[in-house]
Amino acid sequence: MKAFVLDENITKYTFGKPFDTETVFLKGTEITRENIEFFKINKEEKFNLTYNMDISQIVFGLGENQRGINKRGGIYESFCKDEPNHTPNKKSLYGAHNFIVLDGNEKFGVFVDFPGKVVFDVGFSNNNELKISLGEENFDIYIINGKNARSIVRKFLSLIGESYVPPKWAFGYQQSRWSYKNENTVLNIADSFIKNDIPCDAIYLDIDYMDKFKDFTIDSDNFPYFESFIKRMKNKGFRLVPIIDAGVKIEKGYNVYEEGVEKGYFCTDTEGKNFTAAVWPGLCHFPDFLNKEARRWFGLKYKILANIGIEGFWNDMNEPALFYTKRGLKEALNEVKECEGKNLDVYSFFNLRSKFSNISSADEDYKSIYHNVDGNKVNHYKVHNMYGYNMLKSASEGLKEVYNNKRFLLFSRASYIGMHKYGGIWTGDNHSWWEHILLNIKMMASLNMCGFLYIGADTGGFSTDANSQLVIRWTQFSIFTPLFRNHSSMGTRNQEPFSFDDKTTDVLRNVIKFRYALIPYIYSEYMKAVINNDMYFIPICFEYDDKTSRRIENQLLVGGSIMIAPVYEENSAGRYVYCPEDMLLWKVSDFKNRKFNVVKKGHMYLDVELDEIPIFIRKDNILVIGNTASNVDSLDNRELNVIAFVENKAEYIYYDDDGISFDYKKGNYSKITIKIEKTKNDYNIDVKNSKNSFLNKLNFEIVDQEGTLSKKTIYI
Amino acid sequence: MKAFVLDENITKYTFGKPFDTETVFLKGTEITRENIEFFKINKEEKFNLTYNMDISQIVFGLGENQRGINKRGGIYESFCKDEPNHTPNKKSLYGAHNFIVLDGNEKFGVFVDFPGKVVFDVGFSNNNELKISLGEENFDIYIINGKNARSIVRKFLSLIGESYVPPKWAFGYQQSRWSYKNENTVLNIADSFIKNDIPCDAIYLDIDYMDKFKDFTIDSDNFPYFESFIKRMKNKGFRLVPIIDAGVKIEKGYNVYEEGVEKGYFCTDTEGKNFTAAVWPGLCHFPDFLNKEARRWFGLKYKILANIGIEGFWNDMNEPALFYTKRGLKEALNEVKECEGKNLDVYSFFNLRSKFSNISSADEDYKSIYHNVDGNKVNHYKVHNMYGYNMLKSASEGLKEVYNNKRFLLFSRASYIGMHKYGGIWTGDNHSWWEHILLNIKMMASLNMCGFLYIGADTGGFSTDANSQLVIRWTQFSIFTPLFRNHSSMGTRNQEPFSFDDKTTDVLRNVIKFRYALIPYIYSEYMKAVINNDMYFIPICFEYDDKTSRRIENQLLVGGSIMIAPVYEENSAGRYVYCPEDMLLWKVSDFKNRKFNVVKKGHMYLDVELDEIPIFIRKDNILVIGNTASNVDSLDNRELNVIAFVENKAEYIYYDDDGISFDYKKGNYSKITIKIEKTKNDYNIDVKNSKNSFLNKLNFEIVDQEGTLSKKTIYI
Repeated sequence: MKAFVLDENITKYTFGKPFDTETVFLKGTEITRENIEFFKINKEEKFNLTYNMDISQIVFGLGENQRGINKRGGIYESFCKDEPNHTPNKKSLYGAHNFIVLDGNEKFGVFVDFPGKVVFDVGFSNNNELKISLGEENFDIYIINGKNARSIVRKFLSLIGESYVPPKWAFGYQQSRWSYKNENTVLNIADSFIKNDIPCDAIYLDIDYMDKFKDFTIDSDNFPYFESFIKRMKNKGFRLVPIIDAGVKIEKGYNVYEEGVEKGYFCTDTEGKNFTAAVWPGLCHFPDFLNKEARRWFGLKYKILANIGIEGFWNDMNEPALFYTKRGLKEALNEVKECEGKNLDVYSFFNLRSKFSNISSADEDYKSIYHNVDGNKVNHYKVHNMYGYNMLKSASEGLKEVYNNKRFLLFSRASYIGMHKYGGIWTGDNHSWWEHILLNIKMMASLNMCGFLYIGADTGGFSTDANSQLVIRWTQFSIFTPLFRNHSSMGTRNQEPFSFDDKTTDVLRNVIKFRYALIPYIYSEYMKAVINNDMYFIPICFEYDDKTSRRIENQLLVGGSIMIAPVYEENSAGRYVYCPEDMLLWKVSDFKNRKFNVVKKGHMYLDVELDEIPIFIRKDNILVIGNTASNVDSLDNRELNVIAFVENKAEYIYYDDDGISFDYKKGNYSKITIKIEKTKNDYNIDVKNSKNSFLNKLNFEIVDQEGTLSKKTIYI
Repeated sequence: MKAFVLDENITKYTFGKPFDTETVFLKGTEITRENIEFFKINKEEKFNLTYNMDISQIVFGLGENQRGINKRGGIYESFCKDEPNHTPNKKSLYGAHNFIVLDGNEKFGVFVDFPGKVVFDVGFSNNNELKISLGEENFDIYIINGKNARSIVRKFLSLIGESYVPPKWAFGYQQSRWSYKNENTVLNIADSFIKNDIPCDAIYLDIDYMDKFKDFTIDSDNFPYFESFIKRMKNKGFRLVPIIDAGVKIEKGYNVYEEGVEKGYFCTDTEGKNFTAAVWPGLCHFPDFLNKEARRWFGLKYKILANIGIEGFWNDMNEPALFYTKRGLKEALNEVKECEGKNLDVYSFFNLRSKFSNISSADEDYKSIYHNVDGNKVNHYKVHNMYGYNMLKSASEGLKEVYNNKRFLLFSRASYIGMHKYGGIWTGDNHSWWEHILLNIKMMASLNMCGFLYIGADTGGFSTDANSQLVIRWTQFSIFTPLFRNHSSMGTRNQEPFSFDDKTTDVLRNVIKFRYALIPYIYSEYMKAVINNDMYFIPICFEYDDKTSRRIENQLLVGGSIMIAPVYEENSAGRYVYCPEDMLLWKVSDFKNRKFNVVKKGHMYLDVELDEIPIFIRKDNILVIGNTASNVDSLDNRELNVIAFVENKAEYIYYDDDGISFDYKKGNYSKITIKIEKTKNDYNIDVKNSKNSFLNKLNFEIVDQEGTLSKKTIYI
């Protein structure tokens, strides 16, 4: 073990020869340490580290995972998995996020930088023991000290680098389904948004837009005039967002396949041949995204679509998901042959059935894949969690070459910490289950802790059928997620906002319009989180450290100014809410028609009608609200509404930029600093403008602790 | 359609020629009716009945099912199913319970008496439409009018007849696992209960106690001295409860098989041969429980075990579950042959895989089974939900012949309304998921509405691994369920109360001991529900009809005196509770050490430590508490503690009987009527004794609205 000081609060411990995940670039200064802080090392079975948790200790983190914001009580395996059935016993989902924060008598963060399987037993086997197990002894562990969870997370975020930023239009509502199969279907969806007066920025193309699921091809029967279709859609106000999958179809004459073979850019198998497994296109090879040249080669393929007007992509199946390999299928078929003619006993039958049900994404197959990393042959199983990460990196680097200074929409299903530099993630194939709204709520803050800011779930649920109430409640939460997309699976009930009855359409219209009015706030908070290495979704107890706040799993702070308490139970007429301080409650139905109520610190039961979204503005804080429009490009926010709850004084920094370019990285953004101070009978308002030349009017609605509303207007 | 008046509030509508389920015996008087009340009949596709629900209408009922106590928003299929994965999208579980109560501007109950598949679309497809669909037009529908949900349910319960009553020992704690495989394992479990001072009444024998899973046989390797082992266990204070499955192994020389074949007592197939499918023993035939003679024949087989001292059984796999049939397996294997050598495209692969995953309990197989009902050949698919019902009836009738006037423990996995006359049910193969504690809570009241009183779930969860906290919280709820059993699957972590750390054992010891102290109350309330055609678990709004109570899904009334609010969320330090009136809160940790607090009507957040069970005694109500013991037979309740929360006057009828015989049916039970009236400075206590000659002392703890505790003792 070697130890390196990265800063006064961060120490890196290096065991063996770690694979460079490129998550942390800082190297630090080597120091002498006998032992790793906090943990005991145990090498009896597997290599593992243990820590005795005190009874009050909360364990935050692990990103995209099951259970609560507090991870205590579970076992989690970091090993990116195509897991379409997110029941509570599943240990791995699509992402691998090895960062936790322990918050008890001792407070510290731990990042295990290892791209293979890592198991976190957080008091499952033994109530008070945290046990981190790794298959091999080549990894870095970062221990981060800090005075509280929030500051530890911020140190970690500064360590792993600045987040991806999408174009501003990607903060609009996005509509997806597997699949809108042809031009007409897509047009009908677009027209339905227009006809129903529901804003929407993007419509997604799932796998069926491709010719036989071949990346960077178009099905010319269903999309005969794709280039002009893209333009036609853009003119209507909609961007198209096509999917790109990891597997490349083995097909003679298909240029991506042929080039990949020729150049040796695919992953190989134990015999050195190109590794083959079936995914959507049937048998495929898999680009070796860990090979720099292959990565660049594949990344530049996006040009094909970017050049004809596509401005965003989603990367799927990049755990990588493997439906079957010849090995797995052969094994299952051999089992069938063994059984044939025999009077199967029950265990033989179950064994036979499991051969088929366990055929996909098998460890044995992962172990037979090899990468070429700077000329070295590296077994995939040891670096499994790097695959989706580097596929997104490939796309990101490719798109940067294509778009230059223009931002693009990009997100992935599989991920590893560090990938946030290249794009966002969605949380994969969830279900239209009420439980999954709550899981969605809980995951968001955990993902922010691991660096992922551009995130969201399939609103309404991907698998199984949704009813209108579920879609409404879920959408009411999703308006706060940066990635705000409704997506559903083939074979399930349609769940576009106009797919139910008129009343549902009316409710969802108001909900989605409100999202657009929130974009000035959401974008400002998102960008400040990016620039300040901070979170956007924040657990309540990161700001309020009272005993009750520490246990809240179903409310979140969104940015610095507001708290949300989504309704996530069927047929409920409201919910319980805990306010850790006095707050200003706004139940939003039609956002233009505003009523505010001061609610006192403490517990309350809140009636929430089906068309209402409760928002709590924190004390001495400010929420900015803009206008709505049919899409982000059409938003006209020359004037903003400033809603403030002021006991003494409130301050808000309103960030904005061109929403298009990367110029914000050079400091090219505007900041308006709004200060409101309560005087005896009035308020002093101070507005400082830095670099803004667009916004010219602020309409203030200021409420004091007695609930008295004052309105003012200030021109900038 | 014919109509029959059964009483002034109940009308039966007969369509076609219904199969007699024997659920309702009352025939009624025929009347002339043009239309069925409330519903529109529609025969376009399938036969269906629709009703327009008003927006406030709650739909109660459907027994063992997903979602809330309020069933609105879901689709449910009544078709008994071996469904081991209870995710929220599953439409059928093990029971088929076609009774609902609509409670809105109009209030009425509907019982669809049809033993085939019935679909209830309760506002899923269309928010405000209830749609009941049936595959054929031969059924009875009962419409029950009443002034509120509770009274409608009570009328329904009186219609379907008196519930099964188990022996009193079956109210003790019961320990199960798939499987305690041999004498030594069972002995070790028993000794661990004794050593850890944890009460327990019964240990379960899952399928492995049998010789090759053959009903009514014993594996003589693992249980070489079964008869003396039963006695030995009884002497230690434990009863053994073996499982009996539906399928009878096809094996030459096995007498149940041979007799069944010889006498023609098995279900037949389309060719008239004995129907064959594989379950645990491999290929099996299935007793035709719808054939009176076969039912009696199989029922009397229980004698084999009853005669050597077994006093209770559980009936499993009686949906009936079918792992595979030759047809299903052949179809899957043919699919394999079709695929062999081909370059499988992905849809062919999925099709192949689904052939194996959908092989079990296929409709096509059910459609190929036939029953002999009074000489008539009846297709199984049309009467599917009768199978488990009649298996339990078979056992019940057989055991009555064996035991005469002695009660026995008996419960089933599959069920249909009406089966409650013969035994209880457990809710099947749940998971060690926190969500399933909540599902358990919600199901209990729905099952009571459908007549099932002796009910409980697998405490701690059957499938997947439990942690200690989950087992504690689940057990804290299950102490209120009449069937109180901890059960878990092969391959999962052990979850007996002593399987975790010492602290967990300590907590669970207190929890289970408290169950025994509650038995006087639980048994009294259970028996009063039996005798009065009433419920034991009652939704809050059946007693309190305020707007808030109508939406409560996570609290229950247990009997007439108490409300419970179980903690069912991981890592929570308490929960929200709504008190619909002032109540007396008792947080039970060690039940002998009592502290009471008056809590006011309204909402509250309640801190609940891991070792605490909050119980709310309703205003002007009385809870009786007895002693604890190592098992029910050892309970000595010559004196009882009477805990009362009295504003004006409280009354309680304490029921008891011998706990062994059916003499209660002849009125041979004791009743002690306790009345407490608050006077100016004291209480008047009046105790009326009817037929009790055992209980001789009552220790009163009376708390008034100010929280003042008065203690008194009364000798009877």
